[in-house]
Amino acid sequence: MAIIESIPNVSEGRRPEVIRQIADAIRNTPDVHLLDVSSDPSHNRSVFTLVGDAAALEAATLAMFERAVASIDLRTHKGEHPRLGAVDVVPFVPIEGITLQECAALARAVGRAVAERFGVPIYLYEEASPTPARRNLEDIRRGGFEGLAAKMSAPEWAPDFGPAQPHPTAGASVIGARLPLIAYNINLDTDRLDVAKKIAAAVRQSSGGLRYVKAMAVKIEDRNLAQVSMNLTNFEKTPMFRVFEMVKREAERYGVGILESEIVGLVPQAALLSSAEYYLQLQGFSGDQILETKLKQSR
Amino acid sequence: MAIIESIPNVSEGRRPEVIRQIADAIRNTPDVHLLDVSSDPSHNRSVFTLVGDAAALEAATLAMFERAVASIDLRTHKGEHPRLGAVDVVPFVPIEGITLQECAALARAVGRAVAERFGVPIYLYEEASPTPARRNLEDIRRGGFEGLAAKMSAPEWAPDFGPAQPHPTAGASVIGARLPLIAYNINLDTDRLDVAKKIAAAVRQSSGGLRYVKAMAVKIEDRNLAQVSMNLTNFEKTPMFRVFEMVKREAERYGVGILESEIVGLVPQAALLSSAEYYLQLQGFSGDQILETKLKQSR
Repeated sequence: MAIIESIPNVSEGRRPEVIRQIADAIRNTPDVHLLDVSSDPSHNRSVFTLVGDAAALEAATLAMFERAVASIDLRTHKGEHPRLGAVDVVPFVPIEGITLQECAALARAVGRAVAERFGVPIYLYEEASPTPARRNLEDIRRGGFEGLAAKMSAPEWAPDFGPAQPHPTAGASVIGARLPLIAYNINLDTDRLDVAKKIAAAVRQSSGGLRYVKAMAVKIEDRNLAQVSMNLTNFEKTPMFRVFEMVKREAERYGVGILESEIVGLVPQAALLSSAEYYLQLQGFSGDQILETKLKQSR
Repeated sequence: MAIIESIPNVSEGRRPEVIRQIADAIRNTPDVHLLDVSSDPSHNRSVFTLVGDAAALEAATLAMFERAVASIDLRTHKGEHPRLGAVDVVPFVPIEGITLQECAALARAVGRAVAERFGVPIYLYEEASPTPARRNLEDIRRGGFEGLAAKMSAPEWAPDFGPAQPHPTAGASVIGARLPLIAYNINLDTDRLDVAKKIAAAVRQSSGGLRYVKAMAVKIEDRNLAQVSMNLTNFEKTPMFRVFEMVKREAERYGVGILESEIVGLVPQAALLSSAEYYLQLQGFSGDQILETKLKQSR
């Protein structure tokens, strides 16, 4: 059975009863597992983590939209995080037995169904986007709910599904497919933020670095050290070990070493296995050789 | 539920009908999964790989002994591999939700039951052995079936369970508990077998190297290169990355590089993850952060 993860971001982080109702709508959908709910009052935003197959996630997403559109009014919503809709972003992520392209097809099907049922305009992003210029979430979201009506009046910002104007209270939603994100930080053996800044600039795509790396420099005040804080958006094409080695090499340029690295949150097993393969120079290794995988297949 | 692996070695590799009967006896035991059967006619020996919990593996082992003792006569058995019994060796290996010590307790329970039911003397080995001098399989097996009666007449070779003389046709069996073995080979960027021999001697326990490494040098004729061929018997205490780095450093001493390494057969996931952690200098990483593990826990 295919396993897909979805991590919808909803524009409500302050009213516990609304968050609970949305969580219940997801949890009560058959064959869906709600793994995590995390709410941020200052962002006024909640992130749900759920898994299931395509049919189960489509049903859960529609149930979630029904509750969110009924309960959230963006005209009175305040919060620090940029947002476009009551349900702001819905990514579908392939985990097991399914491709990124199949998740993109699911995103299109769900987007069409949401637009038809709730009258919310839908923008497709990342792998699901038919338009190269509209793949990037930040570009779609720029201007926020407050600027949405003006933005949508331009022909290049016609939505992929649904009405050509914002939903009056629920705005618009961005739905798409992407690979799992890895939040990966490398702590330098120095307190020099300028060094971390130069390294971040060297490794991130936006300033000429690796294709699937976002990076910035952060000062960890309580430990008095500088950190290169990164998001890896495609660990298959830009693997962790290559990012680590590039940061290490750039740091050497300034006489600085790597103190340690850390993964924040979840990481796909394959991202770590490929690092073991790389450093151990493993040849001809297959995932079927992992005892736990072999056992799972036999049961 | 606890998952234990057992890899019994049986002294029959030439008569397919006997091998099939033993495989069926294992397969027909409830809650046991027979993952693999591999027979070697020149060794005249078969290796079965099965998994299950303690009760299921005890039942499967007894069913296997019943068939093997009835069908195999070591007085007429010929083969290249050293052996002591019709069922020669039965290791129990902890995979999930169970400790090595619990597998040792299982080995003792199974050994006692086999001795009582079939009159076969049992030697406990590795973690199950109560006698430090008798932990090592090679020591117990030295002399083979042909030398067994003489060996057992010495008080220090009285069996742990069962009669003080060999079973007339089935000899004696060695039962115990150990961690998963990893068959790990490193190919050198040279055809010089003398270099591989010096490296093998440096890294293996028997000549002063790492505690849980067995190593020998092998010439890979068809590729014209020298290999350090190893068994890692405790990947938790002597991890793969440390073995790799030691081989690499020793090779440098002779101006030789590492061409590649290979894992033969199965490897526990944790052995590869610890290598990723080591090289990426990961700090504070927990197995719960692996997406697939998190998913499994939620279901």
